[in-house]
Amino acid sequence: MKVLQIPLVIVFITAPLLAQQKLPTVVQDRLEQRIFDLAKFGLQENGDTEGVAFSDADIEARKWIIETLEALKLKVHIDYAGNIIGRRKGKDPSKKLISFGSHIDRVPNGGNYDGCVGSMASIEVLTVLQEQNITTNHPLEIIIFSNEEGGVMGSRAISGHLTKSAFSVKNSTGYSMGEGIMRLGGDTLKLNQVVRKKESMAAFLELHIEQGGILEQKQLNIGIVEGIVGLKWWDVTFEGFANHAGTTPMNARQDALLAAAKFVVAVNEVANSFNGAQVATVGRIKAEPGAPNVIPGKVIASLEIRDLSSDVIEKVYQSIKERAKAIAQESNVKIGFEPLDTTANPALTATSIQKEIESASKNLKLSYHYMPSGAGHDAQDMATIVPTGMIFVPSKDGISHSPKEFTSAKDMANGANVLLHTILALDKKLK
Amino acid sequence: MKVLQIPLVIVFITAPLLAQQKLPTVVQDRLEQRIFDLAKFGLQENGDTEGVAFSDADIEARKWIIETLEALKLKVHIDYAGNIIGRRKGKDPSKKLISFGSHIDRVPNGGNYDGCVGSMASIEVLTVLQEQNITTNHPLEIIIFSNEEGGVMGSRAISGHLTKSAFSVKNSTGYSMGEGIMRLGGDTLKLNQVVRKKESMAAFLELHIEQGGILEQKQLNIGIVEGIVGLKWWDVTFEGFANHAGTTPMNARQDALLAAAKFVVAVNEVANSFNGAQVATVGRIKAEPGAPNVIPGKVIASLEIRDLSSDVIEKVYQSIKERAKAIAQESNVKIGFEPLDTTANPALTATSIQKEIESASKNLKLSYHYMPSGAGHDAQDMATIVPTGMIFVPSKDGISHSPKEFTSAKDMANGANVLLHTILALDKKLK
Repeated sequence: MKVLQIPLVIVFITAPLLAQQKLPTVVQDRLEQRIFDLAKFGLQENGDTEGVAFSDADIEARKWIIETLEALKLKVHIDYAGNIIGRRKGKDPSKKLISFGSHIDRVPNGGNYDGCVGSMASIEVLTVLQEQNITTNHPLEIIIFSNEEGGVMGSRAISGHLTKSAFSVKNSTGYSMGEGIMRLGGDTLKLNQVVRKKESMAAFLELHIEQGGILEQKQLNIGIVEGIVGLKWWDVTFEGFANHAGTTPMNARQDALLAAAKFVVAVNEVANSFNGAQVATVGRIKAEPGAPNVIPGKVIASLEIRDLSSDVIEKVYQSIKERAKAIAQESNVKIGFEPLDTTANPALTATSIQKEIESASKNLKLSYHYMPSGAGHDAQDMATIVPTGMIFVPSKDGISHSPKEFTSAKDMANGANVLLHTILALDKKLK
Repeated sequence: MKVLQIPLVIVFITAPLLAQQKLPTVVQDRLEQRIFDLAKFGLQENGDTEGVAFSDADIEARKWIIETLEALKLKVHIDYAGNIIGRRKGKDPSKKLISFGSHIDRVPNGGNYDGCVGSMASIEVLTVLQEQNITTNHPLEIIIFSNEEGGVMGSRAISGHLTKSAFSVKNSTGYSMGEGIMRLGGDTLKLNQVVRKKESMAAFLELHIEQGGILEQKQLNIGIVEGIVGLKWWDVTFEGFANHAGTTPMNARQDALLAAAKFVVAVNEVANSFNGAQVATVGRIKAEPGAPNVIPGKVIASLEIRDLSSDVIEKVYQSIKERAKAIAQESNVKIGFEPLDTTANPALTATSIQKEIESASKNLKLSYHYMPSGAGHDAQDMATIVPTGMIFVPSKDGISHSPKEFTSAKDMANGANVLLHTILALDKKLK
């Protein structure tokens, strides 16, 4: 109300500051408390955590989520893919949904922040709007996606990418994905009803911990995600000749592990030789026969390359292949590449939403950094059907998928405020 | 008899030639046939072999050996360690035994030549002596050592190096060494009676396939073994930090596998950087957690170094450790070395016997090469109690411990002739 009493000329000059003052902000302690409350589900006596999708702890935590959302007067349901959907009416019934959310399921013995921060921040945003009696023009929707860690199940279902072939995959609970969908209150026979049409929503936003160390290292508050990197996997096979490690002179060896070792070094060198954020990793290696006194005759290693651009992935791969060719020749070892199914295309976020996240960060006096997401997220599949934005907050020491995962209450509140302000800005600007 | 009829002056000039003509030679076809006969024990329908110590096939083959030795009028017994001992009286009861032999037990799905050639050649030597009615001055002894492949059991027992702690070790038959000794007709409670005093024998000789490719490559007939290399084993541990392969930039990684790969390359470079026949091998490697999308946080690899000189082993090890230190620093990964129990000291053969093997080879117009044995043998333990000699014959393509193992009948006969002539020369020269 104050604004209206001030002469117009001043209003223009101080508009950004006033806008910032006017906009609601989240309650940091409440957000942190909900993270603590959520962490209790599946907490073991020894400090380990068990919140894998379909587990009893997952089911209990989901009940608590639904109660919390219902207490905020949202209309809540579980869709046929097991996603928890909470909706809040907007002023204009002709407008499309602005959606946001994340997941609460975890990897085995995972942390309390991956997925949970985005989920609790989304609830905090809705709590603030409810508390301050703010009704947006667009209807709002929170989605707590089901089984993100076991194959971004919920978001794949909504975007139409979940295939029946995935149903038989069991996770560490022992339940298959098909059984798990039923257990969460979904229905595998009605999954087609969950699929949303392209452009049927106005926007989708996900807040997530970075799961890397870049923001912390650069001492920045907010990551503006340019996209979720694509990834390709290969099995790389090295075929030499297994022989007696005592009787085979150094110059007569066809040592598959020596060739593989040179390859691992080459992969690292190639990934470092290009400008950009591409990463290449050898994470798995097996040498046969695998005895200290036998020169390895065969090695199988994994190769993973990730980047925001499929072209860069291909360029890195070709460069690695070239190096492998030279290594094969000098080592007298055959090297073969077998592409694996586990391939994800890069998913770019909407530039317009990136700009809104930047504005919100600036208004909140938060430092920010444009960056790719190296990890997969529900936003990756959502980006294929709706203009999508993604906000990162710092991860302590870059640690993730571990009980050591940590993001400070301040960092979580910063992210939640950016999420809240971006939603309100989009609500004003989007048709 | 001819020699005595020739004037003395000529005798001196032609002595080496005449000596060669006079000396008996082995029967190549009979030697090869015995290799074929022995190979039938444990031969599977699919071509695989099963002649592991304590197996039914091993027991059956040993019965055949005993029958064959008894047919040669030897006095045969099984000692308390399960060794088959066959003795032939000499002219001079005051003289010590000249012993020779090898083993017939195999690795799982092993070949028909490792151990078998030395055993059958020893029997052929005795057959020739029996046939030609030759009685040596020294008593002769053939030893078919028990369970060579499972820890040079028989020769360790004779040399006093077999410890009770080994009794519980099971081989692929499912029998423990203790059970196996009883099964072969030995007695674990009386093993101390098997131990022989140092210098209680005049000499020990073993003929063996090379199990490497040096003789074949150099197109030589006979290897004169200078000694059996010593070996040391270490577990090398690389501790980095396991992290998300998508979210951790290349320059922020503590990749234990990258450090291990650089180490494998360094081990090879160091072993190649010294003159000599030393070998260093990384045969076993394990990366944790071992997923394509996780940067390995921990790697454990084996390191084995072999050489005829303990000093060289130490020198190579120190040089590798220095390289590891630099790798640890540049990779931000901790590297630790843990020495393992599996250590064998180098065992040198007797120079005087090497010279006799050389003379025998020359007289037989066979080419020869002084070389270390990279593999362990019964001769290794025997060398600690008796002046020992070892004769190598070529292995096709250097292959061993495989059904593809092969040595030609000609090469086996060459080796058996060298063995026979060396025994006869030693018999004349040794007190």
